[in-house]
Order: sequence, then structure tokens, then C-alpha cells
Amino acid sequence: MTRVRDLSEEQILERIVPLLPRGSATLLGPGDDAAVLAAPDGRFVVSTDVLVEDRHFRARWSTGYDVGRRAAAQNLADIAAMGARPTALVTSLVVPGDTDVEWVTGLARGLADGCAPAGAGAVGGDLSGGPCLVVSVTVHGDLEGRAPVLRSGARPGDVVAHAGVRGWSAAGLALLEAGLVRAPLSPVPLEVGEGVVLEDAWERLVSAHLRPEPPLAAGVAAAEAGATAMLDLSDGLLRDAGRLAVASGVRIGFDAGAFAADREELRSAARAVAAASGLGDPGWGPGRSDVDGVLDGWIWGGGEDHGLLATFPADVPLPAGWTAVGLVREPGEGPAVTIGGAEPDVGPGWDHFRA
Amino acid sequence: MTRVRDLSEEQILERIVPLLPRGSATLLGPGDDAAVLAAPDGRFVVSTDVLVEDRHFRARWSTGYDVGRRAAAQNLADIAAMGARPTALVTSLVVPGDTDVEWVTGLARGLADGCAPAGAGAVGGDLSGGPCLVVSVTVHGDLEGRAPVLRSGARPGDVVAHAGVRGWSAAGLALLEAGLVRAPLSPVPLEVGEGVVLEDAWERLVSAHLRPEPPLAAGVAAAEAGATAMLDLSDGLLRDAGRLAVASGVRIGFDAGAFAADREELRSAARAVAAASGLGDPGWGPGRSDVDGVLDGWIWGGGEDHGLLATFPADVPLPAGWTAVGLVREPGEGPAVTIGGAEPDVGPGWDHFRA
Repeated sequence: MTRVRDLSEEQILERIVPLLPRGSATLLGPGDDAAVLAAPDGRFVVSTDVLVEDRHFRARWSTGYDVGRRAAAQNLADIAAMGARPTALVTSLVVPGDTDVEWVTGLARGLADGCAPAGAGAVGGDLSGGPCLVVSVTVHGDLEGRAPVLRSGARPGDVVAHAGVRGWSAAGLALLEAGLVRAPLSPVPLEVGEGVVLEDAWERLVSAHLRPEPPLAAGVAAAEAGATAMLDLSDGLLRDAGRLAVASGVRIGFDAGAFAADREELRSAARAVAAASGLGDPGWGPGRSDVDGVLDGWIWGGGEDHGLLATFPADVPLPAGWTAVGLVREPGEGPAVTIGGAEPDVGPGWDHFRA
Repeated sequence: MTRVRDLSEEQILERIVPLLPRGSATLLGPGDDAAVLAAPDGRFVVSTDVLVEDRHFRARWSTGYDVGRRAAAQNLADIAAMGARPTALVTSLVVPGDTDVEWVTGLARGLADGCAPAGAGAVGGDLSGGPCLVVSVTVHGDLEGRAPVLRSGARPGDVVAHAGVRGWSAAGLALLEAGLVRAPLSPVPLEVGEGVVLEDAWERLVSAHLRPEPPLAAGVAAAEAGATAMLDLSDGLLRDAGRLAVASGVRIGFDAGAFAADREELRSAARAVAAASGLGDPGWGPGRSDVDGVLDGWIWGGGEDHGLLATFPADVPLPAGWTAVGLVREPGEGPAVTIGGAEPDVGPGWDHFRA
């Protein structure tokens, strides 16, 4: 094994840079003091997100490749949530000296594969030693002449719609924490509860946690269709929906039956997690350890699916990839977000300094 | 003292965001999934740099304010080195939960003051807990219709010129390490060697280390004057000059008397450091502990001054802030960089995984 400290910074970069995609907007790639990117729109969109070892990922479950995929995905989702098309990202990497160089080249491959669906480039970065792995990505996008879709534009009467998966990432993490699936991505066939484990389905959930695939094309499609507000779901549906409601000065009413398809997809995993010993509290939600409590926690409280939540005028046909899940209501008394007309009884999303 | 873990992420952001400058290119600032920036040129320049506690700064010497100033400065210098005007930056911050919130608000103030000379905005970021302080900044700039000034454009016969200070950051660090000046920025009057310490001058050197002030305007001026190549000096003059030489396929010959003014500015500090016990090796350079050896190490090997090195056609008057320090030579046998025609006997610059 070659460790990072066995190579110079330049030797490491020589291994990384050839793995990175150029992207069609890149006028000057890595190697100089800065990259140069095209911004044909005369504006660009920019966002940054950081992943920290043992906060956002565990090195025993996530390979470098997984972390690269995830870093790209969660950043690209922020660009999609503005209705923009991702063009390029840059990456700062902090890595302990005893890290296998393969972890770092895996990260580069993961970034590349994460960028591929969007055609985005990876155009530069910085590399430093440090006590734990930190991956900070900054991503850019092009609005292609459209107005950005903000959190603040939802109007009473709009339809609330969702794109992507719900609760899969939280379910995947719970399966890993319960030891019901082993990572990196090698499922363990187990007999749990009533029947045989559907290991393929469970592996999809773990994959959704380790390598989320945000619905990037749905962001641009929503903007083109006239979405009035949109945001990336990274901290839990209720918490993020509350942010949209507050920014727009409205209330969000989710249908009681919203996310029924995801709920069924997750049920076998929820049953297994609820049955597993020592898991009285699923980690999200109201602390109910029954199957429906676990499902509620994953769907409404689980973060990091990086789906999109948007609002559309009621007369607009929803574009491909979007499902209606509720209505925007007038501001007024009561909670900013309701489920089936009632106040949710699941807790707030993740807080990085309290969890 | 209020610690970071005593507040929610949103409460911390409420304290930070009002401290950040908006910048004239900012169309949409912090608070949504992404910021929107103007790119009137139809292109933009982007670079990223990370600062890690105990690698790039020590919390006992650098306040949050200092780290913010430094993070802004070193990133803005990369934009200036392309001949671009900085427009805006975003910041990822990793911070242990027991950190004083004042450190974080100080960082925001330092970023703001670092951005002020360039009129750049601070338009977004991300915040996470973690085991040590990590500040990752990504900065953007506008080329205003000019071609970017690359490392690869130097031609034989060009004049090599320098803007900014040389060796000050290394001298400031050495004064801190020797205990000759106390930080945060409270100089200790001491009798050293032949005479009374010039504490004001020393404090300037320590300030240059903790709060570097890159010659941002000189970057744009160089591009406008027709500089053929340029780069930011962050890893040591010889190492960075070597990069420019290799990228351009030329050799760089520094004059024997280059940086004479900086040398005199640094002499009293070098005398004190050489005289201080236990400092046989100054940390840079050839391991010579005599005054001229210390000076050579700081001038030629010291990093993080964030001055600029550029090459100009011989018939171009150097713009304000630039000093001629050498000539570009034809490629050929011998070292890529010489001083007074001879091979330098000082060591290479900093390597983050070896130092």
C-alpha cells in the first residue's frame, strides 16, 4: 500500500488530475493558479458543501469512491435546486498522511462518476494533510437565461411536488448501523422477522446512502415548467419544507398519503430495523420503534436523500420525475408544515453540533 | 463564553451572515441553495485553498480574525495571479464544538476585511463540526475582457518582476516560533544581540505572516501591461519560480541583488533568530544558522507571502508595484532557476505531507 505521506503533493496530483472530467464549460482546467469557466448566461450559480469523516461518512462503510460520489451529488443537487445546469466543481481535500493513496484516487473517480450525469467538470482543487478526512466541494452552474428558482416564491394554492427518493438514505444508514447490511456494499443475506431478506432491495437503500443520485434533470425541468419555489432536501423533509414555508411566508400541507411508494419500498428494511435488538430509538423521528414509527422517521426526518421539493402553479402539468405531495396554504395560525392536516409528531432534522 | 455546540447551526449563521460583505457582483447572496453572481465577461475564474489548524496556522497565535484575513488573502491572490479582479468567495468551515463562537464571528470579520481591498463579496458557505479547525475558501474573479495570464507564457528575454513582500511571512513565523514576538500580535520588547529590538518592525513581519496582504491590484495591472506569465508565490520563491519555468519551457535567472530591500527589512529579525538558542536550523533553506543563511531561507524558500511573480516583455515599462528581479533565459542545460547565475543552495519549499 502506498500512503499519502510517501508521495509529494505533486506526485499525488499527477495521479488525480487525469481521472477528472473536463466538462464542456471548462476553458482552462487544473494546473494554473485558477481555472477559467464559461458563463454564457452572464451569471453563474455557486454553492459549497463539506463532508467530514465521522460526521457525514464513516471510512469503514464509505470508500473514497463513495465519498467522491456523495460529495459531487450533494453539491450538484444544490445547483439543480436553483433550476441551473451544473457546469464544474472544485475540491479541497484534507487527508491524514497514513491514508492509502487508493482512497484519494477513488475519491477522484467518484467525483468524476458523480459529475458524469450532469456533464460537469472537475477543474481544480487543493490538497492538505490533517487529522481526519475532509472533502469540501464548491460547485457552479449555468442558469441558461432562466431566473433562479428561490425558496421564497411559493404562493398559496400552488401544488407541492417532490422529485427523487424519500427516506432511502436514512434507511440505508440504519441498515448499516444495525449491522443488517455490510459496507462497502456487500450485502449480508440474513433471515429477519417473517421471511427472507430482500438483499438486493436493501443494497439499493445502502447505495442511496453511500452514493445518492439526486434528480438533477428534474431541477432544470421544474424551472422550465415555471416552478415558483424549490430547494434541495438535505436536512430532513419537515425541516427543509419548513424553511421553504418560512422563506415564502406560507404554510405547507403534505397529503396524508404522500410518499406511499417510498414507504412500501422501505417497509421490509423498517421491519428488520425495528426487530433488531437494541434499536428502540431509530435515530430519527419520535422515538417510536414500531415499523410505522421507523418509516415516519426515515420519510419525514431523514436527511441526505438530496431529492428536490418544489411548488408549481396549480394549472401547470408537473414535469417528468415530479409527484404531487401536497398544497401551499395561506399563512396563519398553526404549524408551518402539516401532514394530513395535523401537526407532525416527528422531530427536527439533523444538527451537526448536537447530533 | 458561548461555545459553538451551545447554538444551532441556524443561530450561528444568524451571527455570521450580517458580518459578510455583499460585493458588487452579487445578484443573490447567502440563504438559498446557492448564490448567483454576475459574470459580465461571459467567463469567470475560480480557485480554492484550504487552511488546516496546526498545518497552516496555530490557534494560539492566530485569532479567528487572522485566519479569516489569511484565508481571504491567499485565495484572492490566486485570482490576482490570473490577471482577474476578485468578485466573491464562499467558505466551508469545520469547527470543533467547544470552539468559542467569537472565533467564528472573528473569522467572518477577517474574511470581510480581507475582501474589502478587492471589493469582493462573501456569498455563502457551509458549516460542520469536526475534530479541528478547517477553513476552505473558493474564490471567483472576473477577467474584464482580458486573456488570463498563465504560468506558461514566459519567453526568453522577458523581464522577471516581483510584486509584494518577500520573506516577511517566513520571518514572522520564525519570530513566533522563537518566542521573540508573542501573538496574537502583542510584541514583546526584548534585548537581543547587539541592540534593542525594533518591535514595530517585527510586529509588521508577524502581521505579514498572520494577515498577509497580497498585491491584488498589481495582478490586474500586470495583465493590462501585457505580462506574459504570472503566478502567486505561496510555496517558496524558488519552487514557484521553477513551476513557472517548467510550464513555460524556459529558465529563470534571478539577479544576485534581487530583494535587497526586503533583505534589509528582515536583517534585524534574522540576527535575533540566528542568535536565539536552539535555532541551528531556521526551518527553511540550507540549514545555515548564520544571519545570511537565515535571510536566504526566508527570501528564497519561505512560502505564504502571496506576492506575485510575473514576466514582461523587455520593452514594457513595469506597472506600479512591480520590481525587476531577473531575466527569462532560453531553455538548456543546468538548473531551471539560478541566482546570480549560480545554482541555488537553498532547499525546496514546503510539502504538506513531509514537513
